[in-house]
Amino acid sequence: MSGDRIRATYRLHVGAAQAAHRARLLAVEQSLEMPLEAVGDGRVLAEVLARVEQVEPQDDGTSLARLLLACESVGDDAGQLMNMLFGNCSLQPEVELIDIEVPAPLARTFGGPNLGIAGLRRLTGAAERPLTCTALKPIGSTAARMAALCGDFARAGIDVIKDDHGWANQPSAPYAERVSACQRAVLDAGEATGRRTVYAPSLYGTQSQMQRQIEMARALGVTAFLIAPMVCGVATFDALKREHRDLAFIAHPALAGGRIAPPALLGKLLRLFGADVVIFPNHGGRFTYPAETCQAIARNCRARWHELRPSMPAPAGGMSVERVPELKREYGADSMLLIGGSLLAAGERLTERSRAFVAAVADGKVAA
Amino acid sequence: MSGDRIRATYRLHVGAAQAAHRARLLAVEQSLEMPLEAVGDGRVLAEVLARVEQVEPQDDGTSLARLLLACESVGDDAGQLMNMLFGNCSLQPEVELIDIEVPAPLARTFGGPNLGIAGLRRLTGAAERPLTCTALKPIGSTAARMAALCGDFARAGIDVIKDDHGWANQPSAPYAERVSACQRAVLDAGEATGRRTVYAPSLYGTQSQMQRQIEMARALGVTAFLIAPMVCGVATFDALKREHRDLAFIAHPALAGGRIAPPALLGKLLRLFGADVVIFPNHGGRFTYPAETCQAIARNCRARWHELRPSMPAPAGGMSVERVPELKREYGADSMLLIGGSLLAAGERLTERSRAFVAAVADGKVAA
Repeated sequence: MSGDRIRATYRLHVGAAQAAHRARLLAVEQSLEMPLEAVGDGRVLAEVLARVEQVEPQDDGTSLARLLLACESVGDDAGQLMNMLFGNCSLQPEVELIDIEVPAPLARTFGGPNLGIAGLRRLTGAAERPLTCTALKPIGSTAARMAALCGDFARAGIDVIKDDHGWANQPSAPYAERVSACQRAVLDAGEATGRRTVYAPSLYGTQSQMQRQIEMARALGVTAFLIAPMVCGVATFDALKREHRDLAFIAHPALAGGRIAPPALLGKLLRLFGADVVIFPNHGGRFTYPAETCQAIARNCRARWHELRPSMPAPAGGMSVERVPELKREYGADSMLLIGGSLLAAGERLTERSRAFVAAVADGKVAA
Repeated sequence: MSGDRIRATYRLHVGAAQAAHRARLLAVEQSLEMPLEAVGDGRVLAEVLARVEQVEPQDDGTSLARLLLACESVGDDAGQLMNMLFGNCSLQPEVELIDIEVPAPLARTFGGPNLGIAGLRRLTGAAERPLTCTALKPIGSTAARMAALCGDFARAGIDVIKDDHGWANQPSAPYAERVSACQRAVLDAGEATGRRTVYAPSLYGTQSQMQRQIEMARALGVTAFLIAPMVCGVATFDALKREHRDLAFIAHPALAGGRIAPPALLGKLLRLFGADVVIFPNHGGRFTYPAETCQAIARNCRARWHELRPSMPAPAGGMSVERVPELKREYGADSMLLIGGSLLAAGERLTERSRAFVAAVADGKVAA
């Protein structure tokens, strides 16, 4: 893909008079990182140096700079894409990464989600409505307790039950014991109800540790996993996705906050690397992302983008059964609604509350 | 280490009246992440829930909150430590992570640098003065060109020559070809001069890719590597360090910008996970970290901290030979001075300029 370019848009918090100069410095920083007069190789200047395509002053006093980065500098390494997009300039507080566009060959190289929205519907058997999702909490519980909870949620008809993202290999419920107990609980519930529930364990550690965790779980019939790409590194995420083409990966946004705009990071980059589901902190919960930001994440997840399968956006972070009608209106059928703590807060009425969640998603009315 | 706690200090950008409440919410967010009234297990509330130790209003209108996180929630996983410290709250712009302290057993678990400052001095043969370091640029060059540059720098007496952090496996100079040519160049130079120069290739991709890169390079006698822990994931970094106890790891700060204070992230967490050298953007160059921040990074790198070896701080990011006396005064002998682009800018006079760098570090005077 020699000659192909990645288009990256940055917001520069500098005066309009400095913006063009600052953009040129950024282009050097994010590619050759040395004084250009000392670059003796004309090919490098022509083909590897990042180029400034456009600089546009904005009404708010910042400027938007569009840079063209050479695909040659990235190759097929997801980590290297992050590095070239935002490695050094993450250390420059006046720079934000706002948006990215990649050429078709680079999109093919990373390949996006294994299953995408259609595949998730096949996996869960849920057609033409949002998927329901909840989380196994709190960390520190026993595996037996998490498995019991898993069974309760599955019998109530929840589509996807994921580990809390804080689960790793804690001694109270080590991975192998927890995953085996929880997977058995959803399978047992499925036999009783005739419905399919997907249990998604949380992956932790390094690529080789995660590889072993996946192998152990898939032998039990597990088909989906929770992963935090910004914690484990996007290259690890991308490699696991490529290695396991039949599995679904649910991306958790832990450590993803910062100066890369959420619609670009969660809605585009994580989709590019392989997120079948993108969990994001929805407005009106415990997080303060504005509604437009949340909607832009969902839009990017599902927009036509090269040949990449769409990711399923999963608004989360303090949602409740009462908000299901609003969430359905806002995000439509091709979404996964994640309600965790608020179901657990129902205590003895957890099963009832979970059924109300399932019913509200299915028919648009919130059961009492 | 049941019962041990990690002390994490956060800056809360909320009014003083809300600070105590906000700190309690943060403690829940960074541990159990669910309504506490629904936690039925007393052990979990007592031993796993994060606790607020202190909340102190500051003169600038923010508050500092000290939280105690349970080591049980982290185990021995570096990624999970990042997750519990800052995973979810990275998505809450009103929260910054300012400082961390870990109990002795957790420090032993991660173990810190393999070699530390004393080991780097043994590796390079450089005693009682700062080490000199430079970088091979620009990406896009041929392996032969980088090897020639490597030879020039080595003959000038530079201690450590690292790949630019943008080097991965680009077709112009694939890893195997580049590393083998550059390592041969430093060995040849060493035979001619009788001095030792260390060449540090840049690692890219996943843990298993990096593992292969290390094996290939160490067979050629390579003893140090450049790695960007926030790009590859800290668990990958920590695992490679544990696997290769005789090697030095130079940590690059790519993607490390954000709302974790640099002295905590670069000076403490990267040291904890194994950085023999911590590269950081020094004040007065292309980056705008204040001098106090840079000095705090260096202080944390070298402070007595459990039994962990000290990391060598490496001020970088637009330094020049002219600044060597000032850098020596500011950072002292136990530092590595990294000058990249400014040596390359000398063009035909590169060798002369590199010798001036070496001489300035050795004797405190800047050669003409």
